[in-house]
Amino acid sequence: MTRAVPTSADVARLAGVSRATVSYVLNNTNAVRISEPTRRRVHEAAKELGYVPHAAARSLRAGHSRMVLMPTPAVSVGPLYNRFLSELQWSLSRLDYTVVQYGRVGLTGEEAARAWAELRPVAVLAPGAHDLGPQGVALLKRSGARAVITFGPYQVDGAHALLMDQRSVGRAAGAHLLARGRRRIGVIIPQEPGLEAFSRPRADGVRESAEGTGAQVVEVALPYDEGAAARLAARWRSLGLDGVFAYNDEYAMLLMRALQDEGIAVPDGTGMVGADDLMLGRLLRPRLSTVRVELPSGQELAELVDRMVSDPSAEPPARQLLGAELVERESG
Amino acid sequence: MTRAVPTSADVARLAGVSRATVSYVLNNTNAVRISEPTRRRVHEAAKELGYVPHAAARSLRAGHSRMVLMPTPAVSVGPLYNRFLSELQWSLSRLDYTVVQYGRVGLTGEEAARAWAELRPVAVLAPGAHDLGPQGVALLKRSGARAVITFGPYQVDGAHALLMDQRSVGRAAGAHLLARGRRRIGVIIPQEPGLEAFSRPRADGVRESAEGTGAQVVEVALPYDEGAAARLAARWRSLGLDGVFAYNDEYAMLLMRALQDEGIAVPDGTGMVGADDLMLGRLLRPRLSTVRVELPSGQELAELVDRMVSDPSAEPPARQLLGAELVERESG
Repeated sequence: MTRAVPTSADVARLAGVSRATVSYVLNNTNAVRISEPTRRRVHEAAKELGYVPHAAARSLRAGHSRMVLMPTPAVSVGPLYNRFLSELQWSLSRLDYTVVQYGRVGLTGEEAARAWAELRPVAVLAPGAHDLGPQGVALLKRSGARAVITFGPYQVDGAHALLMDQRSVGRAAGAHLLARGRRRIGVIIPQEPGLEAFSRPRADGVRESAEGTGAQVVEVALPYDEGAAARLAARWRSLGLDGVFAYNDEYAMLLMRALQDEGIAVPDGTGMVGADDLMLGRLLRPRLSTVRVELPSGQELAELVDRMVSDPSAEPPARQLLGAELVERESG
Repeated sequence: MTRAVPTSADVARLAGVSRATVSYVLNNTNAVRISEPTRRRVHEAAKELGYVPHAAARSLRAGHSRMVLMPTPAVSVGPLYNRFLSELQWSLSRLDYTVVQYGRVGLTGEEAARAWAELRPVAVLAPGAHDLGPQGVALLKRSGARAVITFGPYQVDGAHALLMDQRSVGRAAGAHLLARGRRRIGVIIPQEPGLEAFSRPRADGVRESAEGTGAQVVEVALPYDEGAAARLAARWRSLGLDGVFAYNDEYAMLLMRALQDEGIAVPDGTGMVGADDLMLGRLLRPRLSTVRVELPSGQELAELVDRMVSDPSAEPPARQLLGAELVERESG
């Protein structure tokens, strides 16, 4: 444990070559012709010493790293988005990037950008565009990031925006409830911090779908809590709602249970639509109608990142990412 | 965008001081006395230029970094463990560590250790101890990691083990079902890859609880899939089980729905216990009995990491992390 960390100088000494040669061989540089026997000697010496190249030293020499930094999302984002992030990381690693997630530790805006910049990533993929800001983007670029890509509802000056317009989710739910004849539609607004970025545009989408139809849209606050759901169910009849968009499938399960315990039938009393198409929705009775959210493949986005690192100006500044499709089952 | 990255030399020039002084001031070194006006001048110059210290360069000078590396768990680990990881990251950042998660990109064993070592972390917190191996631990330590800490069921030579003995979860479930008079107990084994590390020891725990009681324990494979659950429910009566430990609350929900659709009553026909105490268990009818898993505070573990970084030999090589407590509701 107190053994010194082997360096490239140790490898060079053991292999009987220069440090530059070690660097050329281990970084697979083709700029310089090095004979096969020499290459083999370097690899064997590195193996014998247990030498691991230092990414930081390499990036200091190269002037940039192969590190893609993805801040951890602030809120638990659900299985769908997790699968998407995981596929994106795989695809980036196949393109020889090192993907690290930066722990969400209360930093926002320029302060977060400064902390990320210390790691000198060549690209930053930031969920939650809204709190990075143009100054944060500029700071990251000054520190060597060739691509700053945001995921979220807004565009940020200087960054490439992958727009995830959650309004399309609300629009799909609203249009479906209206087509089934619902005329006074509740929209559940979760009270957990961090979810506004999703819940606000989803509610806006329901309102957009109702424009010009004469139908009413009513926002209903609901914390993710059994007692609160029971209290809401107890005053449900007084709200006069005949349909509800429950924000997502988990809130739909919470609300459906509370309504059923109160003797309010779904869908006869109130038609209900969730979102995200989780397994649990299929296990409810009645089976939950939901909005399936479609994300592009991680492969596709990894290639976008790679193109932007090669030529930051080659891509259009924004593209729309989310697709939304209604899955009709029994609840509404 | 093409502006050069400002360096500490630029800051030194603007502030009219040496690069060493810039380094002393910005790294808050107290070894050298520097006047307040000089400190102020350095900070102002850094701000004006938008200078961000390079973590890598700093760690090259210091010989070690303040980076704690946590590989992303291979499988989705549920809200409880996510909350724990998030609290741990907060606590580490308050102790001035930079926490990065390394994307799970198919690397295991020594290959994974090599990729992590390139970032020269001062500590590694690795979930999934089993695939790192003693060689991986040694390699990380040779590359400067002062603490290598594994989470999982096993101990790995050279690493500090935070043992998460999932058997205690199975034991709590088994003991409860036995106390309720169940004599032939099924144990659900999920078929999703990556879950064996949890499901095997949980099943072992149920078996341990039944030792010497004359009760039988039967393993039952179940993929997380509606059709498979329906097929299992159709042959449930032929299995002759009067109790079941459903691996976790999500599998319990899947199985309970399939049994109820098949006309098998819970708990009268089959008593059922889940695990993890998720909200959805409370929303089922009958309400799901479950095993609540208790993890230590992130604060406590962050302090352990900090002590190990200061003095790697000061801590005992292992400690038990998991507590398990049965929560009785209505299903079993």
